[in-house]
Amino acid sequence: MSRSTGRHFLQIPGPTNVPLSVLAAIAQPTIDHRGPDFRHLALEVLGGIAEIFKTQSPVVIYPSSGTGAWEAALVNTLSPGDKVLMAETGHFATLWRNIARRLGLEVEFVPGDWRRGAVAAELESHLAEDRAHRVKAVAVVHNETSTGAVSNIARVRRALDDAHHPALLMVDTISSLASIDYRHDEWQVDVTVGGSQKGLMLPPGLAFNAISDKARAASRDARLPRAYWDWGDMLAANADGYFPYTPATNLLQGLKVALELLREEGLPAVFARHDRAAEATRRCVRHWGLEIWCDEPADYSSSLTAARMPEGHSADALRADILGQASVSLGNGLGRLADRVFRIGHLGDFNDASILGALAAIESALLSRGVPAQAGGVSQAISYFAQKRRPMRAAAE
Amino acid sequence: MSRSTGRHFLQIPGPTNVPLSVLAAIAQPTIDHRGPDFRHLALEVLGGIAEIFKTQSPVVIYPSSGTGAWEAALVNTLSPGDKVLMAETGHFATLWRNIARRLGLEVEFVPGDWRRGAVAAELESHLAEDRAHRVKAVAVVHNETSTGAVSNIARVRRALDDAHHPALLMVDTISSLASIDYRHDEWQVDVTVGGSQKGLMLPPGLAFNAISDKARAASRDARLPRAYWDWGDMLAANADGYFPYTPATNLLQGLKVALELLREEGLPAVFARHDRAAEATRRCVRHWGLEIWCDEPADYSSSLTAARMPEGHSADALRADILGQASVSLGNGLGRLADRVFRIGHLGDFNDASILGALAAIESALLSRGVPAQAGGVSQAISYFAQKRRPMRAAAE
Amino acid sequence: MSRSTGRHFLQIPGPTNVPLSVLAAIAQPTIDHRGPDFRHLALEVLGGIAEIFKTQSPVVIYPSSGTGAWEAALVNTLSPGDKVLMAETGHFATLWRNIARRLGLEVEFVPGDWRRGAVAAELESHLAEDRAHRVKAVAVVHNETSTGAVSNIARVRRALDDAHHPALLMVDTISSLASIDYRHDEWQVDVTVGGSQKGLMLPPGLAFNAISDKARAASRDARLPRAYWDWGDMLAANADGYFPYTPATNLLQGLKVALELLREEGLPAVFARHDRAAEATRRCVRHWGLEIWCDEPADYSSSLTAARMPEGHSADALRADILGQASVSLGNGLGRLADRVFRIGHLGDFNDASILGALAAIESALLSRGVPAQAGGVSQAISYFAQKRRPMRAAAE
Amino acid sequence: MSRSTGRHFLQIPGPTNVPLSVLAAIAQPTIDHRGPDFRHLALEVLGGIAEIFKTQSPVVIYPSSGTGAWEAALVNTLSPGDKVLMAETGHFATLWRNIARRLGLEVEFVPGDWRRGAVAAELESHLAEDRAHRVKAVAVVHNETSTGAVSNIARVRRALDDAHHPALLMVDTISSLASIDYRHDEWQVDVTVGGSQKGLMLPPGLAFNAISDKARAASRDARLPRAYWDWGDMLAANADGYFPYTPATNLLQGLKVALELLREEGLPAVFARHDRAAEATRRCVRHWGLEIWCDEPADYSSSLTAARMPEGHSADALRADILGQASVSLGNGLGRLADRVFRIGHLGDFNDASILGALAAIESALLSRGVPAQAGGVSQAISYFAQKRRPMRAAAE
Repeated sequence: MSRSTGRHFLQIPGPTNVPLSVLAAIAQPTIDHRGPDFRHLALEVLGGIAEIFKTQSPVVIYPSSGTGAWEAALVNTLSPGDKVLMAETGHFATLWRNIARRLGLEVEFVPGDWRRGAVAAELESHLAEDRAHRVKAVAVVHNETSTGAVSNIARVRRALDDAHHPALLMVDTISSLASIDYRHDEWQVDVTVGGSQKGLMLPPGLAFNAISDKARAASRDARLPRAYWDWGDMLAANADGYFPYTPATNLLQGLKVALELLREEGLPAVFARHDRAAEATRRCVRHWGLEIWCDEPADYSSSLTAARMPEGHSADALRADILGQASVSLGNGLGRLADRVFRIGHLGDFNDASILGALAAIESALLSRGVPAQAGGVSQAISYFAQKRRPMRAAAE
Repeated sequence: MSRSTGRHFLQIPGPTNVPLSVLAAIAQPTIDHRGPDFRHLALEVLGGIAEIFKTQSPVVIYPSSGTGAWEAALVNTLSPGDKVLMAETGHFATLWRNIARRLGLEVEFVPGDWRRGAVAAELESHLAEDRAHRVKAVAVVHNETSTGAVSNIARVRRALDDAHHPALLMVDTISSLASIDYRHDEWQVDVTVGGSQKGLMLPPGLAFNAISDKARAASRDARLPRAYWDWGDMLAANADGYFPYTPATNLLQGLKVALELLREEGLPAVFARHDRAAEATRRCVRHWGLEIWCDEPADYSSSLTAARMPEGHSADALRADILGQASVSLGNGLGRLADRVFRIGHLGDFNDASILGALAAIESALLSRGVPAQAGGVSQAISYFAQKRRPMRAAAE
Repeated sequence: MSRSTGRHFLQIPGPTNVPLSVLAAIAQPTIDHRGPDFRHLALEVLGGIAEIFKTQSPVVIYPSSGTGAWEAALVNTLSPGDKVLMAETGHFATLWRNIARRLGLEVEFVPGDWRRGAVAAELESHLAEDRAHRVKAVAVVHNETSTGAVSNIARVRRALDDAHHPALLMVDTISSLASIDYRHDEWQVDVTVGGSQKGLMLPPGLAFNAISDKARAASRDARLPRAYWDWGDMLAANADGYFPYTPATNLLQGLKVALELLREEGLPAVFARHDRAAEATRRCVRHWGLEIWCDEPADYSSSLTAARMPEGHSADALRADILGQASVSLGNGLGRLADRVFRIGHLGDFNDASILGALAAIESALLSRGVPAQAGGVSQAISYFAQKRRPMRAAAE
Repeated sequence: MSRSTGRHFLQIPGPTNVPLSVLAAIAQPTIDHRGPDFRHLALEVLGGIAEIFKTQSPVVIYPSSGTGAWEAALVNTLSPGDKVLMAETGHFATLWRNIARRLGLEVEFVPGDWRRGAVAAELESHLAEDRAHRVKAVAVVHNETSTGAVSNIARVRRALDDAHHPALLMVDTISSLASIDYRHDEWQVDVTVGGSQKGLMLPPGLAFNAISDKARAASRDARLPRAYWDWGDMLAANADGYFPYTPATNLLQGLKVALELLREEGLPAVFARHDRAAEATRRCVRHWGLEIWCDEPADYSSSLTAARMPEGHSADALRADILGQASVSLGNGLGRLADRVFRIGHLGDFNDASILGALAAIESALLSRGVPAQAGGVSQAISYFAQKRRPMRAAAE
């Protein structure tokens, strides 16, 4: 295709558009990971990232993708043959299940139709039946990136409590952290899994485990073999601002700046920005006449919207067209949703103009390709933004 | 105001959004301006920039703003008291006139209403009356950045020819170069003035003079004092790839990459991209019910559109609102147009999504501020883009 | 301490000084890891990295530190209780041993004094005794980063062959790859472990396994649990230019440029450059009267030199002084060598001036701190460089 | 020649090595030069730059090279035919004289042998003879970049005062500003000329005029034609944080950071750092047996040292060799010194290791090329640095 001009719009549901100040920080010269400057950096980001998880407990940072942090959550706390209760919310829940099985765990996978979040009541009934407490962990995806549906973690916590079940609670917040409100401590999550390339506005390459005291205690008896992922070495070294092996220093330089940006904006403002963009996107999609894949409004995701293509039209062909015409990347359908949905990422670093520009590029492609869709969706998003303005600080600045 | 998130949309009619690859080239370490690497760089950009002006003649590059290149055009070719014929197309034509007067030249300023380009017939009548050939130069702004009106330079050339007048022809292409077709040689322009921060997609800091043989000949007898701007020293040094004084080396590193980008896209495609965005913008503005300031359709600019605010509404307040809400910068009204128009830049490095995003941000602000404007303008732009698609290369890449 | 001025000299034996063009590539915007641009990138770097390992076999790239790639080598090929023969060359060999043990493997650790490379004859005698072929893998560190001693892998290969032993051969080239000649195929290594932050001139965050056919075959029966590190998923996805989970895309963008730089220089020239700097460094250290820690000249490392501090003088205090005075970082003594040696990294991206500058900063600190050392070491290095000049291409460029 | 590896050492006496944080600031996206962010930036750098000149008076910033600022100093204050007294300190004093002549001024050029600074007594005798006060300005180069000799401006000021002469005092500090102590107000300089690419650690492209009240008063009557360089428009616009024409915004972004770096280090520490490197360099050059071109020790420059090549040896061939072998750029001999001296820049952003590395690369080339020079010069510099350590702050860090 023709040379693409202008800035690329990375509107997939992660990796997200990385702020230029974060990219610039990553491009600073690599430093000595055993020197005093690194130590300052490490202590700062280890402290800062815990605020994002809303926890007083430690968060470990791996040079890894989110998949590695899934594995870390399991190998640090469980033993061969342990049972894990998981909820089938979509493609990523299924991948996490596969990892658990490969590691020699037994998985009870509560089936789902991929169109809503985990149903806490169903989890609760499984837990209530497990009087022998064979289930050692419950693992749920907070924001299912493949479908745009959110699971209510506070409700899942209550399910465990109501069943008086001692299982650990593990949650994947890879595509919700720093985009949708999340509370590791308040919800008494034992292991929260995160990644760098979504709401944290970094490139991929870092992954996180936020760890409760209960999870640490469990790790002392857990017998799955582990070395790279071992929390013990990591936490011991982190206490002094160092790592047991060479960390991804340049990404940590970027993390420092990303945390500063989030602190400056404030998490409540960050979440409100995502909510607003998500609602604008849904109004636009609905006006086009396309179905929002998530069919439970209470579970709508503020970080992405999956839109269903009309039968007989390829979502992937549409995406390729939009990329070629307008330099906008959209997420593809994953697993059983391949070619049937396209996913609009509205998370990370964006503003009104970038969201509207992406939606407008989609509308233009729908029209030019003859997809049955009603023009004017973007007008709905514009009106919504006009009506629900961003809060502005006083004249000061 | 709140921290701005997402990428800033610099939709003023210059400086324009600089491609990240150009910024990266500018951020390479500074090199020895007398060393072999610099020589290669200089010869490459001196050759490449001439292609953009469509000339076989030399182009000199000053560390300067465009204003300096205006001055350079005059001091190299004229003598104290010489007469210059200029056309009042807007604010920038007026500024150039002021410079000429300050330098001790006599200016005949053909009046205009700032709503169209220079009228060649009027210039021709002035030239026809000048039987003594007291007019030594005719100076015209190709694209008047303050109004969004283009002057037909081929017609101005013909006016000179038809009047059999020997005056030099000087043209300012600061905001049209590499955005709107321009032909230094074919139109027999004697001095073309350019700047780096518009269609060339560079930051401000470089300015250009493309120089015909006739202009060089004139420079030998010209008696306005000159040193910094002197073409003679510059051309002598440039022949070997060097400069008579320290050039703005890092910006030249950026120019190299910018020229590569333009060559890769191809000037015809560059011009077509600008034409298409301009038409989409005008359809949007018209639908809103705002007046396009340029009232001569043949003179519409492909690099910017000035839109007139309804009476009683401040253009500057609107612009401040759009900047705060959506991180989109628009151009202000200049001189007598202050606060009465806002100018939408659609030049340099942009794509469909960035233009539509900017227009959508404007529409949202018009609605939320209660400016009398009809919603749906952006829909018009979307439809136009859908109907007039960008050419795509075959499947290949 | 005072603000440090000038460029920092990162003369630890990795991470190394990253070329600015590599940093700039890493700072390009993050792209869609499922889009066409990423696929091109992935296929290019997967092909290019194999050239560096000198292999026709596949190389997998993990978002990980080198420690992860050690683990990957083991979990993909071995089963619980399998026996591994390892050579104690220093701190890093010891760490690798620890990982093997944690994963449930039995390690036979051939003891060493940390002052030379692995002794092939000793390994061979262990293998000869292992008539039941209980040893499933032999694991050796090519360049022991803690001591500056190289193991002769061709000789280790011969030891296996001479003993007619079928064990897999695993080699850690983390601090030798792209600095000291290494030949995965020719030496019939089964798994070679590498990292990004040394001779490859990248920040830390990527790790590699080069995999022989024999290793792949072994992976089919290996029973250590594995998921993140599994070669099967990785190789299947890589075949199409994708990854089974989100790769560290920005570091891969940097890898592309790093591979171009290495190809441009040519591996033989890269190795010669390292050899030359290493010899200059040793001449300097010897003149000072400090002992080169590696006491087997045949095993001298071309990527780092560990120098022994005179008794009663702290290596770490010297290093802190040099960092504060001259912005030069040196490697600390690790494990049992803590505070007793300092390590000078001469690997990655360097030139004569940067090596000489670092050595001169060390000499200055030795003198000012009253460490018993003879002035004039740098003069030896200067003379050596003067006598053994870099090859220059003809006038052409 | 071979691909150059490692960081380039730009040891010419300007442009200098630009700190990476300054380059990163320059590579931030271009902003609206009429918007609020720019205004903040402009007011900050206009205030900060005055501190560097040690003045309470305004400093104007041109998008220009230093040559333009020479011209600006003249055209703003003088009228055709005015007489200027200048001192021939070297190549750059001669160039400034040439500009004055081209602009129609009469220059009285006090001859010099290019081996020392301006002799205040000679200037004073010229002034004393000028009883009619035909001399309107005295113009002196503070640090003559072609020779490495400094003129004593306080003494020149006294010469004017002692002669009771009302001429304006103009000083070129292009290669001394922010490297060698300079005091615009205390020395009652009327126009100080500066540039961005030396002690300010920026790329070339900005130039400065610091302007006394007396100079501003003179500008009201001065009749040389001027437009681009006119102080009046500039100062009026600057008062509000704007510029009369598009400024070189990205370089101003860099200037902001450069000023922060200088403020953090503190000007006294900056000057001490330059003095120390200069003395180390001279000890090294003397030990080699090469002559320091400046033959008046009181006038030695702290920003560069010109070393005289032994007869029969080409300085330029030596420089080319050093560039090819070690990636170190040195300054060439200018004008009558062509090929006879090489100039070592020790100004801007450097540290002990970078200065020693550059000197070591020179020594290596002297030896390998058979230039009659005594080995061990670098040892002298090392010893000097060891003996005269940089001040360190307390442990705090």
